[in-house]
Amino acid sequence: MMPGRFITLEGGEGTGKSTQARLLCAALQARGLGVLLTREPGGTPGAELIRTLLLDAGNDWTPAAEALLFAAARADHVAKAIRPALAAGQWVICDRFIDSTRAYQGGADGLPDDDLMELHRIGSAGLLPDCTLMLEVPEAEAARRLALRDGDASDRIGGRPLAFHSAVTARFRGFAAAETRRFVAIAAAGDPQVVHHRVLAALAPLLGAGA
Amino acid sequence: MMPGRFITLEGGEGTGKSTQARLLCAALQARGLGVLLTREPGGTPGAELIRTLLLDAGNDWTPAAEALLFAAARADHVAKAIRPALAAGQWVICDRFIDSTRAYQGGADGLPDDDLMELHRIGSAGLLPDCTLMLEVPEAEAARRLALRDGDASDRIGGRPLAFHSAVTARFRGFAAAETRRFVAIAAAGDPQVVHHRVLAALAPLLGAGA
Repeated sequence: MMPGRFITLEGGEGTGKSTQARLLCAALQARGLGVLLTREPGGTPGAELIRTLLLDAGNDWTPAAEALLFAAARADHVAKAIRPALAAGQWVICDRFIDSTRAYQGGADGLPDDDLMELHRIGSAGLLPDCTLMLEVPEAEAARRLALRDGDASDRIGGRPLAFHSAVTARFRGFAAAETRRFVAIAAAGDPQVVHHRVLAALAPLLGAGA
Repeated sequence: MMPGRFITLEGGEGTGKSTQARLLCAALQARGLGVLLTREPGGTPGAELIRTLLLDAGNDWTPAAEALLFAAARADHVAKAIRPALAAGQWVICDRFIDSTRAYQGGADGLPDDDLMELHRIGSAGLLPDCTLMLEVPEAEAARRLALRDGDASDRIGGRPLAFHSAVTARFRGFAAAETRRFVAIAAAGDPQVVHHRVLAALAPLLGAGA
């Protein structure tokens, strides 16, 4: 049996990760591959329970507690959904994974990157994707997309100031620069179908000669 | 201001930790000391939410996810209740803390002790008690107490076989042997008031000359 492949989509809010994850899922299924399309935080009943604790604005978690909850949700997701699917030869497409935790829960106000990777080692045996698609759009375009989605003020994305999102994007770029074998940067502005073809081209080495 | 002291009570189920915690709290208050009496998992609104996830039998957590959830609850409890009370000069009495996680989530089926201590470092800056009271009763006595409490079959304690509890007790003893400055073993069978006086005698060095 051909082993399953583990693909993650990362990037700031408004970069089109969910849309590209769905298009990729359909394209792989059309090739006859078994595909698990999932997302974090969540993806299993236990992880979804933890997700509600994380997203409920009434809970004002400290950075350390938040990072531990993300790691707990991921441990459940990896053990009960991602690893079984990979073992069964399926492709796993995950919308956000460890790099989102590193980008959002790390940084100046958060935990050191080494500690976040240590939580990932303890919780999920350090599972890393075969390929991480890093979706990038110009900042102004991301802000425009989020304003359309939320009806939100254009100087905020997902309820946080633009400076926060610029810092997140800079951290994502830092991870990609440090691990060029795992990350592929995808220019994600413009027509979703055009972006989708960039995604397929990036995955051609994993899809093999018949891709 | 005299600094607060952090006292934990540890030991298997049916060793009388909660009773001794209450008696100790009253005795310290009678000396005019400010006291926070608390217990784990829980102790803050956020940690109580995590406690419900941990104790709901419908959630079948993997050992790693369970350890991360305990660490997240403890991080919240330490940051929002224990450290502020200690900083305000209060004594903190906590019924179960990191050593319970090490005894119950460590061991043969669980995580390595080093990993559990690493989660404690990341989550709670590795906070350790000034004194840990290790309550010990003969196995048969603990089983009898639990049977009275639960109306449970006498060959099980807290729904688990005796062999499990023997292993937990052995791990507690191992921690105490490795850290003789922090741990004090308390013979906890018999009259609770007699045990209480052993507890006060064990804490005399922390209570100072006036104790």
